[in-house]
Formats: sequence, structure tokens, C-alpha cells
Amino acid sequence: MTSSKPNFSKIGVIGREGSLQVVDSLNAVVSSLKHYSVDLMLDLPTSELLSGAECEVLDRSSLGKYCDLIIVVGGDGSLLSVGRDLAHTGVPVLGVNRGGLGFLADISPENIDDSLKEVMNGEFVIENHFLLTAEILRDGVSIEHSLALNDVVVHLGGASKIMEFSVWVDRQFVYDQRSDGLIVASPTGSTAYSLSAGGPIMHPALDAILLVPMFPHTLTSRPLVIPSHSEVEIIVGQAAEISCDSQIDFRLEHGDHVKVSKAKDPLRLIYSLGHSFYDSCRSKLDWATRLGGNR
Amino acid sequence: MTSSKPNFSKIGVIGREGSLQVVDSLNAVVSSLKHYSVDLMLDLPTSELLSGAECEVLDRSSLGKYCDLIIVVGGDGSLLSVGRDLAHTGVPVLGVNRGGLGFLADISPENIDDSLKEVMNGEFVIENHFLLTAEILRDGVSIEHSLALNDVVVHLGGASKIMEFSVWVDRQFVYDQRSDGLIVASPTGSTAYSLSAGGPIMHPALDAILLVPMFPHTLTSRPLVIPSHSEVEIIVGQAAEISCDSQIDFRLEHGDHVKVSKAKDPLRLIYSLGHSFYDSCRSKLDWATRLGGNR
Amino acid sequence: MTSSKPNFSKIGVIGREGSLQVVDSLNAVVSSLKHYSVDLMLDLPTSELLSGAECEVLDRSSLGKYCDLIIVVGGDGSLLSVGRDLAHTGVPVLGVNRGGLGFLADISPENIDDSLKEVMNGEFVIENHFLLTAEILRDGVSIEHSLALNDVVVHLGGASKIMEFSVWVDRQFVYDQRSDGLIVASPTGSTAYSLSAGGPIMHPALDAILLVPMFPHTLTSRPLVIPSHSEVEIIVGQAAEISCDSQIDFRLEHGDHVKVSKAKDPLRLIYSLGHSFYDSCRSKLDWATRLGGNR
Amino acid sequence: MTSSKPNFSKIGVIGREGSLQVVDSLNAVVSSLKHYSVDLMLDLPTSELLSGAECEVLDRSSLGKYCDLIIVVGGDGSLLSVGRDLAHTGVPVLGVNRGGLGFLADISPENIDDSLKEVMNGEFVIENHFLLTAEILRDGVSIEHSLALNDVVVHLGGASKIMEFSVWVDRQFVYDQRSDGLIVASPTGSTAYSLSAGGPIMHPALDAILLVPMFPHTLTSRPLVIPSHSEVEIIVGQAAEISCDSQIDFRLEHGDHVKVSKAKDPLRLIYSLGHSFYDSCRSKLDWATRLGGNR
Repeated sequence: MTSSKPNFSKIGVIGREGSLQVVDSLNAVVSSLKHYSVDLMLDLPTSELLSGAECEVLDRSSLGKYCDLIIVVGGDGSLLSVGRDLAHTGVPVLGVNRGGLGFLADISPENIDDSLKEVMNGEFVIENHFLLTAEILRDGVSIEHSLALNDVVVHLGGASKIMEFSVWVDRQFVYDQRSDGLIVASPTGSTAYSLSAGGPIMHPALDAILLVPMFPHTLTSRPLVIPSHSEVEIIVGQAAEISCDSQIDFRLEHGDHVKVSKAKDPLRLIYSLGHSFYDSCRSKLDWATRLGGNR
Repeated sequence: MTSSKPNFSKIGVIGREGSLQVVDSLNAVVSSLKHYSVDLMLDLPTSELLSGAECEVLDRSSLGKYCDLIIVVGGDGSLLSVGRDLAHTGVPVLGVNRGGLGFLADISPENIDDSLKEVMNGEFVIENHFLLTAEILRDGVSIEHSLALNDVVVHLGGASKIMEFSVWVDRQFVYDQRSDGLIVASPTGSTAYSLSAGGPIMHPALDAILLVPMFPHTLTSRPLVIPSHSEVEIIVGQAAEISCDSQIDFRLEHGDHVKVSKAKDPLRLIYSLGHSFYDSCRSKLDWATRLGGNR
Repeated sequence: MTSSKPNFSKIGVIGREGSLQVVDSLNAVVSSLKHYSVDLMLDLPTSELLSGAECEVLDRSSLGKYCDLIIVVGGDGSLLSVGRDLAHTGVPVLGVNRGGLGFLADISPENIDDSLKEVMNGEFVIENHFLLTAEILRDGVSIEHSLALNDVVVHLGGASKIMEFSVWVDRQFVYDQRSDGLIVASPTGSTAYSLSAGGPIMHPALDAILLVPMFPHTLTSRPLVIPSHSEVEIIVGQAAEISCDSQIDFRLEHGDHVKVSKAKDPLRLIYSLGHSFYDSCRSKLDWATRLGGNR
Repeated sequence: MTSSKPNFSKIGVIGREGSLQVVDSLNAVVSSLKHYSVDLMLDLPTSELLSGAECEVLDRSSLGKYCDLIIVVGGDGSLLSVGRDLAHTGVPVLGVNRGGLGFLADISPENIDDSLKEVMNGEFVIENHFLLTAEILRDGVSIEHSLALNDVVVHLGGASKIMEFSVWVDRQFVYDQRSDGLIVASPTGSTAYSLSAGGPIMHPALDAILLVPMFPHTLTSRPLVIPSHSEVEIIVGQAAEISCDSQIDFRLEHGDHVKVSKAKDPLRLIYSLGHSFYDSCRSKLDWATRLGGNR
């Protein structure tokens, strides 16, 4: 986490495609930014949501290239997609959630004016969230690759059947497994799908990768946390699927190798100065709630 | 569950000792019952909480013997103690909780008048909650026994040390275990301590006993559900403790046998007509709450 | 469990299709039974595995109708299919496993002679294993139904996406859930898929149905055990799949209701006199194994 | 992990007090080392186990000061105590286990000669295992402190009662909790008590601290992994106990603060060149074993 004095003069705004719910927030962001001498830019889907906005329109990757700040409106889900697409540009990203604290999107719709004022005044921190890179090798040749901000999931593409695969870390054999699949999660992803599968919560600043088996056939399987510089290799024993952030999918064939490791460029997320990961946990995971039961 | 037309003429009221919070509820119960031609009786501690009540004062076991309805004010915890003491009398028991749905105590403080009216009109159901009986045998001789409504817990009386014991069910060997102890729970107790230890939730009408290992040294140990007519036998490998409902404790010596089985007489609990166990689960266990996370 | 003196005169033998591994066991069963004055019958696939056997060949359902004992060779998986097909006939079924104790198939390949001798002498017990029946209703009309010996699984037919559904038991609302799906298991199925998903182990004699959420989006979801006479109703919020014993699959459409309840006729399984469910657990689940770790 | 060319000339040998089982291994170590021109030193308890050994006898802390290698005979448990006592000296430590792979003690009794030969030839790696330091503050004043190699456990000193405490990390509030206690574990400790309590397995090279709640009263509590440079602070709501590696215990009073953080000096453990943490996991945690069940 580092504080910094910004000079945000070109700001890109990206709204979640097709979601009418975010148009109000988008309008609030645009009208709030008009108080500052900044160039506003939109991607095409967002410009269609904001028909009268009269901003420059660029494709998403150009936004990442030309802007010095990207604002994403639409919640944590939208940030996953933008994060994968723009992390390599190093542009800082600010998320507007859909109400309630988000793990990634820190600004609430009702506070857009005040929050943007703080950001424009340099009152914020930047937290680096590293991504995973997944590469598929068939007969030793790389045929596909993708980034993931939350997780890379290797699975059968259909529950209640068993898949078999081997896991290696840094060329050391870890285990053969029969299960529904394997979740490889970043710290950021530890509060997403992995958490439903019994994985631990990991602080986003942690330098670690998390491996969580999905319904393993052995009772001794447990979530495994390894250093983030590790290279994970999964060799699948039959046709299967791989899914990045539950948004990008590829088919795998028998014998394919999937290599997962920490990506070079992190997503640089902007949070308000008072931001605490533990506050988000208490809010999103209902840590405040206690059993009322007969204990 | 059976509905019934009662003729409640002698009603015992028991309040939680030492809790000033329940005095208001106690007063509300007493003044509400004055609209009916019933004899009110209190146990001594309750009479001291209600100094001006002018009711007959009996000890708790006499209340069970002479009354045709017992009202317990003070939440699920109080009901555990009354349940163990009075289940054998067969007297139906009605619980007033401390706000919010209780698993056992069904009446809320703000609805005392209306709820008692329904009960006096016969608009209620009686749900049988079976108890467990725990017997300690030393050198083959029974030296102690106790009832439990929630659970019988055999443990070391101090965490972070390991105890060893054997478990037998109906004279069949189940397993040797090294762990912090074992929870033997009734369906009623499945939403109490057992739930914290990873046990399943069991419907109170289920004819089953639940065995949940506490921090087992083997990764293959799992909660085990067996028919309620089973006799569970635990043979401890060192000095240990046994705890019934976390309220009654005995010391165990190396080689002691603990026998746990379903008790003969269930606690007969009164619930309102619309009562659903699943409603209590949703309310007490926050089933309505969903992860807000970045999934 | 009941012991009985049988008069097994017509015995059907069913081997697992396509498995060369079971031919040896099949031959051993057939040659062992030639010492007794019994009529041996095979289904067509088994007769092709045993080309020189000279036995009467019937289809599977006729075997169930005319035989007074069915022997299944091929492990627990084969028994699931035979169990669903023949439970309604009431014919007792004996399983030959593929080595090692089975939960369902009790005879080991190396003991076929001795084990069959005991069975023919009436030295055995019969254990009833109840099945589940699943019915799909679309717009209130029943369109499909199937039996399951282990479990009925409602899922999305593809991991890492979320499905939404409501669960009702005996017309009482239980919960809305967002997860990868729901496992409804019999006691028999509690040691199968459900166990991988965190469900408890249930003794086969238990009169209970088990509901286990699959990767639930809420952290408060837990396995739920309800009386076996309960009717479970699942209403799906989008297209999904239903799978019985991971062997029979149907597609579900948005709004379909799935009703699951205990089937009328149990599978009558034959076990040797010394059989103990807990022995199977220790053997199959490695309960004997202890952590060697640094504790 | 680093390989190195040693010049081990003064070697201390420490055996587990009171264990006759280790005397054979001790003798094997001593006679094996006589082939090398080294000075052998023992602590007093070990010298009494090896009455004819004719070695110099020093107290444990002097061994750490004067030796350039310490050999511990007796398994992972013994290494915990030596690790806490001698880590600050920086002396490398080699463990002889009691048979089977150890997580910490890498040499097996049957390979003592060959393994020591490799070590004396410089064929080994040194792995740093960081320790935790626990400090107790009463009314703001430090009154006790201790090291732990595995874990610091704050608990009630008696199961089946609930304790209340607050957890803070780096002066940020994390949660209030009602539970049986909290396990704060190092990566090394992640395969010990923490694992029984549902914590993940962490690679020993990981720079992380693990917080695992013990039987939490809220269903939303989960294991939490935080960066190793974090300072954990636990404020207890009543009298309680603190336990380091399950070997050192202190009493806590209401309101005491317990601070846990990474200790300055790691334990420097010697492993053979082929050592892999994942091999130890497969061996100690039975990862090779698969469910034989009816799935």
C-alpha cells in the first residue's frame, strides 16, 4: 500500500454492459468529474449507456493506454474483467460498487461526489492485487493462455462425475487427485469461489497462491497455501474444462498440462484512506453475526 | 407433533436465577395468567425475583409433579436445566425467550399475552425432544449418571493436549481416536456445540444420535449419525472430563467407560401452531444472509 | 437386520458389463454354485462374458421376477444399477466386490466358495437399504421420475457458475440457496458423493434423508438431516440438471420442481453374519490411520 | 533453501528425556560420528541416557552457543522444544525421527550412518522455519513472553465453555469472537494442531501467519492467512490460558492483551538434498489413500 499525489487529467469510465442499474452511478460519476479539469473517456458500451455524455470514445485497451485513471462502475464482477484486461498497463483502477462495501470496488453509489473529491485530492491508497496467468500446453506446445484475478478452476464441466489429475509445484510432485476439480486462487480470489469450497481467507497483500480441491475423493485432502513465486502444473487425465474468474473458459483434452503462476503486472486498485480488508470481511461475510442457538 | 385440548389449571413458572433481564418477562407472564382461573406456582429462586407475586412456592421437582404446565422464562439455556430435571414427569414445558426466535423457547417477550392466550385455548403443538442419558462405569460399576438435552461431551478439560479413547456402538468397535474429545449430541443439540464442531443440523423429530470428533488427529474422521436406539460406549485412555449440556461436569479416570443412550422420557415442548424448525434455522443461523463477495 | 433360513433354488447372476476384471469372479461364482441343486440364470451381457456357462438367459427385470437370489459381481457401482432396477421385486441381492471390503458388496473374490457356502446354509443377515425416488414436475405435471440408491443431485451441469433454487420440506420453506447445487442422499449414499461434499456419515439403518449444499454462496449453510418420511421439494431458478447415483441424468428447465422422497421398496442386501458397518468405515475410510505430523 | 559446505567440528546431541526408545538411535548417532574428527557434546539428560559415551556435557543453551551443529533425536515433538531454545543462536539443527518421514526431523533411524555421511559431506539444504513470539501484557505492562515454533493457542483451559475475545491485526480491528479459543500458527504449525481445527496446509517457506478459530459460535468464521510481518493482538474477555506448542502454558486474566508476531531468528533446519515438503505431506497425511467407497 502506498499513498501518492496524483495528477489525474485523463480519466476513463467503464460501466457494466447491459446493466441499467449502473446508469445512475455512471451519470453521477460523469457529472461529479465535470468539476475538475479532466478529459473524460468512455468505452463504446458505456458511451451507449450515457447517450448525452459527449465524451471521447475509445476501445477498452486504448483507455488503459491513454488514461491515468480508470473508474469502473458495476461491482466486483465488473472489476474482474477490467482487471484482467488492463492490469498490464499499470493504470490505477477505482471501483464503484452497487451498494454495500465491496472487496474490490470501494466507492458506494451514495458517496460518489465525496469519494471522487478525496481521490482527486490525492487522499487514497493504492493496493496491488496480483493476477494469475494460466497457460494450456498440449503435447508440450502452448495453445492458450489467460489471466485471472480471482481464480483458475480446472473441472469436468459437469458435476457428479469424477476427474483425475496430477498436481506438481515447482517440478515437485504434490499429489494425484480424484475429485470434481481444483481451484487455484490468488489472495484476491480467496473470498470468492474458493471460500465456498472451504478455502481460508487470505489477506490481499499476501504473497501466496491457494490450491483448494473440489469434493475430493480422499478425506485427507486439504486446502494448500504455497509461495506466490511457485509454478503450479496440473496434468488432466481426461477431457475437462478450465475457467478463469468464472468468465473465460477453455476445453482441455486428456493429457493437457495447465501451468498456473503469478502474473508479472498486478492490478493497481485505489481505496479510500481508511480502507481495511478486515472491515470488508466483517461487512461481506457477516462476521458480526452470532449464532442465536441453544448453546 | 400432536395438537391437544389442554386443561391447564396448575401452572408452574420458573425464571432464570440471577437474571434481572427476565423479571419483566416473569411479571408479564404472571399478570397475563391472572386472567385465567389457574393456580400459579413458583420455585424458590423465581419467587425471590417476584417478591409481590403471592403464589405458592415449591421446589422444582414438586412443580414438575403437581403442575400440568411449566413455563420457563429465560431462553434456551434455562430450558436445558429444566428439561433435564422435569422431563421424567411428562409435564409439558413452554419457554419464553429473551427476544428473537429460540430453538426451544418459542414465545417472545413482546407477545406474551397473545401467545399465552393461544396456549390456554389449546392452540399449540407438543414436540417431543428426547434426552441422552450418560452413565459412568469404573471397574464395571456404575458410579455416576446424568441426563443431557443437548449433548454429552467427553474431553480432556483443557485444550491443546490430546486424549485417546475408543468408541463402541452396540458392542461393535467403531474407532480408536486421538483428539480433543468427542461430542455425543441429540437432534436438539445438533444446533448447539456440535454445530460449531462441524456437525450437521438434525431435525428435532429425527430418531438419531450424532457423534462429532473434536479436533481429531486423523484427517479421515467425520461426524457420524446413528440410530437413536444405539448404545454408545466410550473408553477413555487417561483422566478426562465429561460434561452434560455444558452445565454438569464429572471427572473421569483412566479406563472409565462412559455409556450414552437415548433416555426413556422425552421433554415435551410446547410450540405455537405455526412453528417450523426451518424458520428457527433461518432466523438463528442467518440462512437468509448471502455472501456479498467478489464471486 | 434379520437372519433367515433360505431356500435359494433359482439364482440370477449379473456381472458388470464390459469389465474383463470380473470374469474370473463370475466363473468362480458359477462353478461354486454347481455344488448346489440350483437353477442358474444370467442376463444377456453376463452370458456373453461367460460363453460356455450353459445357463438360462433372461433380461434383468425377468431375473428379478423369477429368481429368489441375485448375485452381482463388480463392486458397489454395479450394485447401484441393479439396486434401482430390482429393489421393487423384493429379491435379496448379494454383491461380490473387486477386492477389499465394500459398503454394499460384501463378498471378496478370494472367498467366493466359503462365502457362498455360508449363504446357502442360511448363515447371513439381510439389511434393508432404502432408495430415494425423484420426480420432476413441469408446470405441475410429472414428466420424469427415477430411483436412486445413493443420491439425487441437482446441479448446473458445469462448475464455477452459480445456480439458484428454493428448498421446501413437507411444504415448509427451508431456504433459498445460491450454490453449485444440492445433494439429497440416503444413508447408503452418505459414504459416497455426499461425504466428499462435507456431509456426515449415516448408519444404513437410519431413517433419515441428508441434504448437503454444494459450494454454497452463504457461509452459514450446513448439511441437514431430516426424517426419511419427509418430502423434499426443490424449485430451480434456471435450466439445470438432475443426476441419480451419478448414473441417470435429466435436464431441468427454469421453474421445474423436483420432489425427492423415500421409495416404497428397499433394496434387500445380504451380508455375512459378522458384518459391521463400522468395520467397513474403518477399512474404506482409513479410520485407522493417524496423522504422523508435528503435533 | 540453500546448499552449503559445512565445517562441522563441534556437534551437540540432544535426546528426548525419558524415552528409552531413542537410546538406540542416540547410540547409532554417537558411534557413527566417531568416524569423523569432531567434538561430541551432550546435554545432561542425554548423557544420562548414554552412560558410557564419554562426551563433554553442557547445558542446552551452552550447546547452542559452542556447537556448529545440533542433532536432535526423538521426533518432531523434541524439535519443538530445541527449536524454541536454540533458534536465536543460529546453529543448524538436524532431526532424527522415530521412523517414517517427519515434517521436521528428516533422518530415519535405519539410515543414520548414510544420512550423517551426506551431512558431513555438505550434501544437504538448510530450510529456515520462522518462530512466533507471544507476549502477554497486563494493564499495558509486558509480564510474560515465549517463543513457539508451531503455534500460540489462546483458550479457556477447559472445553465446552465459551470464551470471548477481540482480535486486532496491525491495530486494525478484525473481529470479536465467541468460541473455544484461537490458534495462531506459523507455516510449520499448519500441519499440527491447526490442521485438526480445519486450517489449511501452508508451505514452510511461506511468509504468513495463520489464525484458526476453535469451534466458533458464528458459522461465518473461517481460517485467516495474513502476512508474516503482521502483529496479531488478542484481548481476552475473561480468565483464560495461553499455550505455546502445547508445551508452555501461562494463565491469562480478564483484559489481558496477547501480542503474537514473527520472531526475529528462524530455526535453521537441515534436510537431505532430495527433501520435498510435498513428499512429507503425502507420507504423513496419507494423501495417497483414496476412498474405497460406493461412489
